[in-house]
Amino acid sequence: MKILLVGARGTIGSAVYEELSQRHEVITAGRKEADVMVDMRSPDSIKAMFETVGNLDAVISTAGEAFFGPLAELTPENNEIAIEGKMKGQINLVLIGTPYLNEKGSFTLTTGVIMDDPIVGGVSSAMAGGAIRAFVQAAAIELPHHIRINDVSPNVLVESMSTYGPFFPGFEPVPAARVAKAYARSVEGAQTGQTYKIYV
Amino acid sequence: MKILLVGARGTIGSAVYEELSQRHEVITAGRKEADVMVDMRSPDSIKAMFETVGNLDAVISTAGEAFFGPLAELTPENNEIAIEGKMKGQINLVLIGTPYLNEKGSFTLTTGVIMDDPIVGGVSSAMAGGAIRAFVQAAAIELPHHIRINDVSPNVLVESMSTYGPFFPGFEPVPAARVAKAYARSVEGAQTGQTYKIYV
Repeated sequence: MKILLVGARGTIGSAVYEELSQRHEVITAGRKEADVMVDMRSPDSIKAMFETVGNLDAVISTAGEAFFGPLAELTPENNEIAIEGKMKGQINLVLIGTPYLNEKGSFTLTTGVIMDDPIVGGVSSAMAGGAIRAFVQAAAIELPHHIRINDVSPNVLVESMSTYGPFFPGFEPVPAARVAKAYARSVEGAQTGQTYKIYV
Repeated sequence: MKILLVGARGTIGSAVYEELSQRHEVITAGRKEADVMVDMRSPDSIKAMFETVGNLDAVISTAGEAFFGPLAELTPENNEIAIEGKMKGQINLVLIGTPYLNEKGSFTLTTGVIMDDPIVGGVSSAMAGGAIRAFVQAAAIELPHHIRINDVSPNVLVESMSTYGPFFPGFEPVPAARVAKAYARSVEGAQTGQTYKIYV
């Protein structure tokens, strides 16, 4: 398969690259040090990326920033970080990218445990995750050419505990390599409209 | 209680007004023919509305437009209708309005059945609903002064079947008056972080 991986430099993205590049052609995309540069906040930049890479069998996004901090400090302005990046960035990848996918191609987006199991400081990221999950479930019944769409909802990562650990008291961290397998399940399997939860 | 009802002129809003105005002071807000004018797409307008009405015991939103139409016609641009109105409008009501709520006050937002049970043509609205639900669940654990937050997820309404019926094949429509009771449950009850589904 020819796979586009957006966010390949992140902790999850690196693990997904490791998992899938063993048996597929994986083209990386991101803001820097990638095969193709893309600014996910810009529909024009997303369109240019697809024009550059041409037809694909799968598109994976592990990208998505969000403001982490107390609800009391969440404003309409800093809430936009998650809306523009994690939410609209990933959704526009689908809205713009669908014509570039081959028959039976797939999209795999990224949500996160806190949309189900909230933490203090994670409201904005949870919101974006909830939007993506509902989008995935609804888009799955309308995509043409047997194109599929799923999302992966990772728990906090073992590799991220030094940074994010204090936000996730009592959560059982999972290795990025285990999360990466869910992306393989989405890309190489046949399901659609699913949320692969790496915490149940 | 002193209750602010945004979207009072809609089908659900009218039923909520009918239900709650029997025993509370309900101030209506909307784009026209309301006690207070507000453009939910503008944080400044939301701020001005709260300054005008002063402290409140409950805020209810039944507002929220979205593009309805095939996924093939959903673009980054028309997806903004739901993002700006249904999603950011309702969320900014909370982010901006929290300081105006009295101790044990409440927010009640509106989602919708299609975030759980998708229909053709409803991707954008489902997305916004999913965002609101996750926001509600996450914000519930951080709101100060025992302020609560819930959302009501209505099925298609009996009153809307002439317009929306064809979009909802096989759905069992519910009367707006029944949906309105869920808003009363949220405002007058003591639960928080809940989604009241008027279809299960």
